[in-house]
Amino acid sequence: MGEIFIQADKLSNFIKTVLLKARVREDVAKYVTEGLVQTSLRGVDSHGVRLLPHYLKGVKGGRINPNPKYQFKKTFASTGMFDADHTFGHAAGMEAAKKAIELAAEAGTGHVGVYNSTHFGAAAYYTLEIAKHDMIGMSFTNTDALIRTYGGRKPFLGNNPISVAVPCKGEEPFCLDMATSVVTFNKIRQLREEKLSAPLSVGANSDGIETTNPDEITMLLPVGGYKGYGLSMVVEILCSLLTGMPYGPHIPKMFEAPMSQKRYLGHFVIAMRIDCFQEKAVFMERMSKMMKEIRNEPRLDKEIPIQVAGDPEKKSYAERSRNGIPLKSVEYEAFKKLSEEYEIEFE
Amino acid sequence: MGEIFIQADKLSNFIKTVLLKARVREDVAKYVTEGLVQTSLRGVDSHGVRLLPHYLKGVKGGRINPNPKYQFKKTFASTGMFDADHTFGHAAGMEAAKKAIELAAEAGTGHVGVYNSTHFGAAAYYTLEIAKHDMIGMSFTNTDALIRTYGGRKPFLGNNPISVAVPCKGEEPFCLDMATSVVTFNKIRQLREEKLSAPLSVGANSDGIETTNPDEITMLLPVGGYKGYGLSMVVEILCSLLTGMPYGPHIPKMFEAPMSQKRYLGHFVIAMRIDCFQEKAVFMERMSKMMKEIRNEPRLDKEIPIQVAGDPEKKSYAERSRNGIPLKSVEYEAFKKLSEEYEIEFE
Repeated sequence: MGEIFIQADKLSNFIKTVLLKARVREDVAKYVTEGLVQTSLRGVDSHGVRLLPHYLKGVKGGRINPNPKYQFKKTFASTGMFDADHTFGHAAGMEAAKKAIELAAEAGTGHVGVYNSTHFGAAAYYTLEIAKHDMIGMSFTNTDALIRTYGGRKPFLGNNPISVAVPCKGEEPFCLDMATSVVTFNKIRQLREEKLSAPLSVGANSDGIETTNPDEITMLLPVGGYKGYGLSMVVEILCSLLTGMPYGPHIPKMFEAPMSQKRYLGHFVIAMRIDCFQEKAVFMERMSKMMKEIRNEPRLDKEIPIQVAGDPEKKSYAERSRNGIPLKSVEYEAFKKLSEEYEIEFE
Repeated sequence: MGEIFIQADKLSNFIKTVLLKARVREDVAKYVTEGLVQTSLRGVDSHGVRLLPHYLKGVKGGRINPNPKYQFKKTFASTGMFDADHTFGHAAGMEAAKKAIELAAEAGTGHVGVYNSTHFGAAAYYTLEIAKHDMIGMSFTNTDALIRTYGGRKPFLGNNPISVAVPCKGEEPFCLDMATSVVTFNKIRQLREEKLSAPLSVGANSDGIETTNPDEITMLLPVGGYKGYGLSMVVEILCSLLTGMPYGPHIPKMFEAPMSQKRYLGHFVIAMRIDCFQEKAVFMERMSKMMKEIRNEPRLDKEIPIQVAGDPEKKSYAERSRNGIPLKSVEYEAFKKLSEEYEIEFE
């Protein structure tokens, strides 16, 4: 499959212009563009620029509100609730991250529950923003039912992701961003396209029976069995129950639900000042030291370097900043179509 | 192997009396006793009463301080640091949980970093205490190096556990308590005793090569590869770096280090008021409803009920409260020896 490389700034300009033409408000368009392009630069293509056409359908259909009226209510010194008024998850998450940072600046930590939202995009977008403020960032989102219930034969919870970013000295933050399934569904789609088998114990067919045939896989297995399932439930509690949003099978599906259907997603964002606990400079130096020590551990395979969370994404970010973001031909065609539809030049 | 069943109150009396005779201060002895017995009642034998002889060696050797001078410093509205002065982790964790609850009562959430501590016991002991106050509890501890570095051939981080407890209506809390390894090392010891093979992909030999021979296993694999490894690192950041304690291979080992050696362990405890986000009664009712819905999902195996985190422990708690806590003969003998040494009657 041929790939077309487009420079990030060119892609950003295009995406933002399309969003504005689609009547997405300037501040919202800015976050969506930044979130998508940063995520593609980091190599996380499943949550990158390829989602733009889907989101635009959401705006047209009425699922996504391009001109939201936010409401934030600080409830206690370290907590608040954010009504996203059904706008883009990128904007909702980033506004919530800023509120969490503000709360943490005064109270030490800030916790913001977000309700009435839509697709979150990459959870790392928000934690990396918090880390820029020399705080530890955590973010979570619910997602529609996708992972097989532990001991069950149907999906109930989504593969609810967890991201944690931690600032360190002399390099970009440590950044974990993981779904609570073994692999993403995007990986299954990729295997289908490439006519390859799936590994054992990553997916199951519609009866809940494990299969390696990607065409039959309709649900994913949780990472580490009951452990991943338990973590997914913790994320569900934070994002659905603490925000008053629907949970699990009651969440409208991203692709299957009509594009007029609001999704009522919930997110949860945490910011923690480091200097509540340790002197910031000492902490950040020790973080870098620990990461370096781990990378210098004896390798299992001499040719494969040891990495910590965020390392592959840092590498991709550097490479793609130079060489551009690769679009698969099907993605490129979709962008070309947008270019015609919105009458904006693209390549 | 024969098991001797002892009623929980009898065991509690014995343990507490032994601790007091070993000059452990009353308030400390109370928490250690409660933590060990509750954990055994919940069926988590690896972290239950069987550890008593080990802890007593720690008191004798000087590792564990039986008469600590605590220092708590509230740093911001929602944060504080707790110096455990090398006492039992049970007491340190419970004191920190109480401080977190106090902070949360005023600021919405409370976060306490614990330093100069020893073995934490079961992380659920603290989160269940927080849940009793109608708050969400989270607790974490570092542990000595035990899991194979992702991509490496040696252990660097421990199988750092995560516990989250959430109150719900009409039943005991949802309670996740999981190590970040696939299985515990105790499981490996059990397989050795029973001359059974280990499952694939749970442990590795001293060269870091995966093996199913439990006698050769010296390190554990992280759950879900880089995901469990990343989570373990997050726990390390909270418990070692935010508390100023040593990390990974720099942590003195629980069993191998001399019993005079202080361990400088760190823990991290979080309490979150529910009513900062949702009306408490509504939240707790929805929690119960969600748990019931999950338990009623179609089963993979008709004979095996679907459980959520904490269900197996609730079942064990009920059974063992009636029938007593089972001691293996080797454990029973160890208790008999303590009975002679401290001149306290035991069965």
